[in-house]
Amino acid sequence: MTVPKGNAVVFTQGGPTAVINASWVGVVLGLKDAPEITGIYGSLHGIDGILNEDFVDLRAQDEKTLMAVSKTPATALLSTRHKPDAEDNRKMVALFQKYNIRYVFGAGGNDTSESLDIMNDSAKAGGYELRLFHVAKTVDNDLMENDHTPGYASAARYVANAFRGADMDNRCFGGLYLCVCMGRHAGFLTAASALGRTTPESGPHLIYLPERSFDIDRFCMDVEGVYKKYGRCVISVSEGIEDADGVPILQRLSSDKLEADSHGNVQLSGTGALADALVDKLKTHLEERGMVEKLRARGDTLGYIQRSFPDQSPVDYEETLGLGRFAAACALGGEPEGSAAIRRISDSPYRSEYKLVPLKSVAGKTRHLPDDHIHPAGNDVTEAFIRWGRPLLGELSLFGELDMNKRVAKK
Amino acid sequence: MTVPKGNAVVFTQGGPTAVINASWVGVVLGLKDAPEITGIYGSLHGIDGILNEDFVDLRAQDEKTLMAVSKTPATALLSTRHKPDAEDNRKMVALFQKYNIRYVFGAGGNDTSESLDIMNDSAKAGGYELRLFHVAKTVDNDLMENDHTPGYASAARYVANAFRGADMDNRCFGGLYLCVCMGRHAGFLTAASALGRTTPESGPHLIYLPERSFDIDRFCMDVEGVYKKYGRCVISVSEGIEDADGVPILQRLSSDKLEADSHGNVQLSGTGALADALVDKLKTHLEERGMVEKLRARGDTLGYIQRSFPDQSPVDYEETLGLGRFAAACALGGEPEGSAAIRRISDSPYRSEYKLVPLKSVAGKTRHLPDDHIHPAGNDVTEAFIRWGRPLLGELSLFGELDMNKRVAKK
Repeated sequence: MTVPKGNAVVFTQGGPTAVINASWVGVVLGLKDAPEITGIYGSLHGIDGILNEDFVDLRAQDEKTLMAVSKTPATALLSTRHKPDAEDNRKMVALFQKYNIRYVFGAGGNDTSESLDIMNDSAKAGGYELRLFHVAKTVDNDLMENDHTPGYASAARYVANAFRGADMDNRCFGGLYLCVCMGRHAGFLTAASALGRTTPESGPHLIYLPERSFDIDRFCMDVEGVYKKYGRCVISVSEGIEDADGVPILQRLSSDKLEADSHGNVQLSGTGALADALVDKLKTHLEERGMVEKLRARGDTLGYIQRSFPDQSPVDYEETLGLGRFAAACALGGEPEGSAAIRRISDSPYRSEYKLVPLKSVAGKTRHLPDDHIHPAGNDVTEAFIRWGRPLLGELSLFGELDMNKRVAKK
Repeated sequence: MTVPKGNAVVFTQGGPTAVINASWVGVVLGLKDAPEITGIYGSLHGIDGILNEDFVDLRAQDEKTLMAVSKTPATALLSTRHKPDAEDNRKMVALFQKYNIRYVFGAGGNDTSESLDIMNDSAKAGGYELRLFHVAKTVDNDLMENDHTPGYASAARYVANAFRGADMDNRCFGGLYLCVCMGRHAGFLTAASALGRTTPESGPHLIYLPERSFDIDRFCMDVEGVYKKYGRCVISVSEGIEDADGVPILQRLSSDKLEADSHGNVQLSGTGALADALVDKLKTHLEERGMVEKLRARGDTLGYIQRSFPDQSPVDYEETLGLGRFAAACALGGEPEGSAAIRRISDSPYRSEYKLVPLKSVAGKTRHLPDDHIHPAGNDVTEAFIRWGRPLLGELSLFGELDMNKRVAKK
């Protein structure tokens, strides 16, 4: 199998993750000794670096630096949400020719895989020989063909740890604690709030996912039920919850104008409005129902910290670095194109493998939390989700519990 | 020195921390082999457990359990914000007599030390021999007589890590990122956002502390200056910022009714309103100034996660366990009362020691960030703060940086 001789470019698109550097560093490690690869360019700010001919020389970086960068959250190659139009694609193919770029590796989510697919079609239409690969990435875990995506496990580890701590905190005073997690259309990250539960009474006691329509009255009754039982309730809510008409709950509850990005996505992160509005609702509900005179109720929003907290899941890191290497190996092995994906072999012991899947099978599609991971009541996850998710996080610190049955006898 | 023979009670009050269990476990470890100590009771929900005679038997817990609990965030003895009145104090002294409780150890902040001081006066007035100790605790680090308080270093570690990740994330797209930290009257936790900076260009670029009055126009101009220079700006803001008239900025910017606790403290945590309002201001300002057509601006609020995240600073853990042991040793050594505090011996190498200080020197007072830790411009910390704070956090993961001077030459 002969492969073209030329330069390679790597770039990253969309929201960063705690391990996204590991994906492109993996590609660089996989390419650097191949005689076919003349230069390895890091395009800055995703495809914008190609359009602006703004490349950092990755061959010139020493391996120690690259390895340190691979352990650093967010992307050292910077990012963009620019969705290329036909003119951009024509321009990029011309620039590939100008720089003799024959290999393209883009790490990103489903918007990125769609952009790459169109870029590939443009190159083919122009008769330019290009080897083009998408390397899966997204904290949301919403890519088809992947058991899970690089970045998800580290974000899930953070979410699970945040809820473990918040649940212990909520026990101290009782009352309500609600926390909003990322995940516009897919509930994987919100579901991860359940992965740190240690006892049957551990929170989150209720989990609301974007895969199920959200009914504000039922939500209030659910919380009331848990509060009656435990005197407290910890609630995990996806930022993307919508009512039965498909209207985002944030939009229902808020009169503020909402911002949309160039892919038409409404801004749901970077605001505490949903948590605040839901907590207000619950407070009013429980106080009006006479459950409590003055309810202690708090709402938080995990926000951007959850996708970039410097605590990589060791499983995520190793798999992501390996996925980058795999994409490089595919290219050098003669594959013309594809999306590098992670598949699961077994839950216990946890084992996974890499697979190159067609770009079009990932491009622009959204994967959702499977039905058997969602509790039939629509307000929790199932044991099947826990079995699936738990191995991805790596070790969590152990929590101790006092034996509360050992009481001092009253005198 | 003879000390009375009797039971000991330990309890925790106020907001939990990541290491508060270590303080009372330290007390238990320090007391458990003393022949003077008959039983060791854990009062549940702070002083409410005394008033309700609701005690868990801590002698009956095995040491392995206690050590596991000491590494678990928030308090296994649960908490309260109940401030005892004169009647409560009379009742508690009667109950101490009924249960032959001769030793009291309360871990808490300045509200707790004040309650303990009054409780002590009540016991003395009633002629009841009691040995009563306050064990410093608070993420806010606002206790007099302490170099720093148990719980602060772990919360500061979280805040520093959150900003390290958020700063790398903000680099990817540019624009503004603002994040609100806990600390009603003391800026120590907000200041900790600076402890993870790695380069002169690292965020947070601006830090607003409750020790300095907050001027919204100057704030907008500060941010504009940083944005002009870097095309981005990461901003750390204390939840407690007030204007020159002493009015909380959240109150200035919000029409919502604000909740107050039984100590008269307004609820500043558990809402994303301040971050959202400040981000709106900045967006409008920079867009109206023609700096950018549509500014990417995001606001987060660290909320409750920062005080209970399961990632103890190793320095905090060891010091806190030791402080509890020290309080127990003071009691067994014949000290009648006091507050167990942490003092610093040196910054580098970092060394600290414990000291028993008078209850009244801590009770009800608030310590602030010293002037030499605050930049004269009022929008940052100083190197003196960094030198003081950095040793408390323990090791942080290393971040790698690409050499961005190694560019591919344009063709």
